Amino acid sequence: MFSLDKNNEVATTNLFTLVAAFEQTKNTVDKVLRNAPFIIKSYTQHLAKSNGKFIRAWSLLICAMDNDDMIHQNAITLASAIEILHLATLVHDDVMDDASLRRGVITLQKKYGKKTAVICGDYLLAAALKLAGSIDSKDEFFKFNMPSYVEQICMGELRQHVNNGNINISFYRYFSIISGKTAALFEAAFYGGAILVEKEKEVLNNYCKLGKYLGMIFQLMDDCIDFEIDESIAKKNVQSDYEQGVITLPLIYTFHKDEDIKNKASLGQLDRKDLNIAVLKAGGLDFTKMISKKYYNKFIKTMVLIDLSEEKKYQLMQILDKAFYGLKNESLKAEGK
Amino acid sequence: MFSLDKNNEVATTNLFTLVAAFEQTKNTVDKVLRNAPFIIKSYTQHLAKSNGKFIRAWSLLICAMDNDDMIHQNAITLASAIEILHLATLVHDDVMDDASLRRGVITLQKKYGKKTAVICGDYLLAAALKLAGSIDSKDEFFKFNMPSYVEQICMGELRQHVNNGNINISFYRYFSIISGKTAALFEAAFYGGAILVEKEKEVLNNYCKLGKYLGMIFQLMDDCIDFEIDESIAKKNVQSDYEQGVITLPLIYTFHKDEDIKNKASLGQLDRKDLNIAVLKAGGLDFTKMISKKYYNKFIKTMVLIDLSEEKKYQLMQILDKAFYGLKNESLKAEGK
Repeated sequence: MFSLDKNNEVATTNLFTLVAAFEQTKNTVDKVLRNAPFIIKSYTQHLAKSNGKFIRAWSLLICAMDNDDMIHQNAITLASAIEILHLATLVHDDVMDDASLRRGVITLQKKYGKKTAVICGDYLLAAALKLAGSIDSKDEFFKFNMPSYVEQICMGELRQHVNNGNINISFYRYFSIISGKTAALFEAAFYGGAILVEKEKEVLNNYCKLGKYLGMIFQLMDDCIDFEIDESIAKKNVQSDYEQGVITLPLIYTFHKDEDIKNKASLGQLDRKDLNIAVLKAGGLDFTKMISKKYYNKFIKTMVLIDLSEEKKYQLMQILDKAFYGLKNESLKAEGK
Repeated sequence: MFSLDKNNEVATTNLFTLVAAFEQTKNTVDKVLRNAPFIIKSYTQHLAKSNGKFIRAWSLLICAMDNDDMIHQNAITLASAIEILHLATLVHDDVMDDASLRRGVITLQKKYGKKTAVICGDYLLAAALKLAGSIDSKDEFFKFNMPSYVEQICMGELRQHVNNGNINISFYRYFSIISGKTAALFEAAFYGGAILVEKEKEVLNNYCKLGKYLGMIFQLMDDCIDFEIDESIAKKNVQSDYEQGVITLPLIYTFHKDEDIKNKASLGQLDRKDLNIAVLKAGGLDFTKMISKKYYNKFIKTMVLIDLSEEKKYQLMQILDKAFYGLKNESLKAEGK
């Protein structure tokens, strides 16, 4: 926890504690959605309700902590931009996936149609880039190069789409998909935060690696959840990755181990229950978690190469554990630790 | 025509004549499409073939002409970015409109599906913003604020979508749609060019007005063509605005003049031939051209307020005439005049 002294500093120096910066970030995202022109707002304001855990913003803010563990206003601006960019990608993802629900809330594409969702996603994408451009350290803005991350995300999405339903997808192809579709935005968050407090190219490179590893862990653990979900949840109109034609690592591994299951899948003879059992039996979940653990270890190995304050190290470990062990550490975040 | 002396200057000072700058712009757009990662390129490279007349790029380059009528490399970069942004909006437009053909070439969404088109549009949007960010006068980049133009375009598109099939659409609403959907990008082109050679806020404001007026003229004349097209062309699988539910000015005026036609339209009893006759009879085309002529005059009135070289004035008049009178002056451009 931070001392009152440090909190008092906020008003005078435009520096914020992690918790205060996080609150400011949430307010900024809210403000961007609320201040959108009426025609846009009427479609996007419900997104504020379905806001996730702001894990990318939180990551960016940690990386932007200075030697005194304080965070500059610019980091809040970039963290907000990253979250709005994330929202934009979700809106277009939902168009791609024909998704009805996102975080338990009806999707924009389901509620207002695909056409509206395409435009609103474009608007949010522009809003994110505009917001990022409003930081006062212009050199850092160009160094950040946010559009190049958008390009990477698009490439990941396109690769996923091209491989939709491809039961022969290779491990290599799968990793190239998720490193674009998920890990690129985490890398952007880590890099965006780090450039505000760090100049050394090698160190920045290490921050990028941390972001990428964290993104891979998040995606791999998310892939596992898809096969661990019980039927009562499954019935709630939530399509699994498999039902959407997205073949993830646990399944790719299972197909390698069990030719029979693969054949059944190719004939469309697998329901979710059979699939979950097959994946568990073949060790698809264990394998995926093992790969995820490798990224976990790589994260720590890379982290110790960076000269970090105890608090910053602690916060990075917290977010790493959160990614790897899931939401059971959630309450820690609320406490600001 | 420009002298050989001026052309020789190109190599030494990074300054280009209008014709040379235009060639460079086309090459740059081509290069961005060709250098895209394979997965993207396989979908977007055919766009290069359907490239339009680069009218927005041409506008930007004219506005960027300095006192010696020469154009800096930065203008070429921004002009290319504007054209790629334009391509991005076309790709997403075609998703919105279910369009099969664009400039006589099969659309990306028809060829590869809507999902691919959504991602490729996003990629092109990011590529445009990344390219714009590569200009070396960083202050001008921030002044330009390209994402805010993307926001305006989205608002125009969304307003059009919301008013799809609305036969009661007001004149006011119609103008707010086209000032976003078409005029904003022309304004961006004029402003983007002007900021590279001009500092005065008032003068820049006048350039913005020129761009907006030109965009309005282009759109209004395009609206007219839709009702002037003969049936042999109409049969080529090209849907008219009306068939797509887009109610444009000639028709809005006709509905105001002829209640009977409006009633028939509301019952879906109008085919294209009846419609064309009704619009012609009611004076919808004359009215639209009269409004367009008002913008034409406004353009000239605003242009004379700016201190321009004879060549720059000439080029602006050329592009204005091209917008108003259509493509019959096309050959002049090829000659570089």
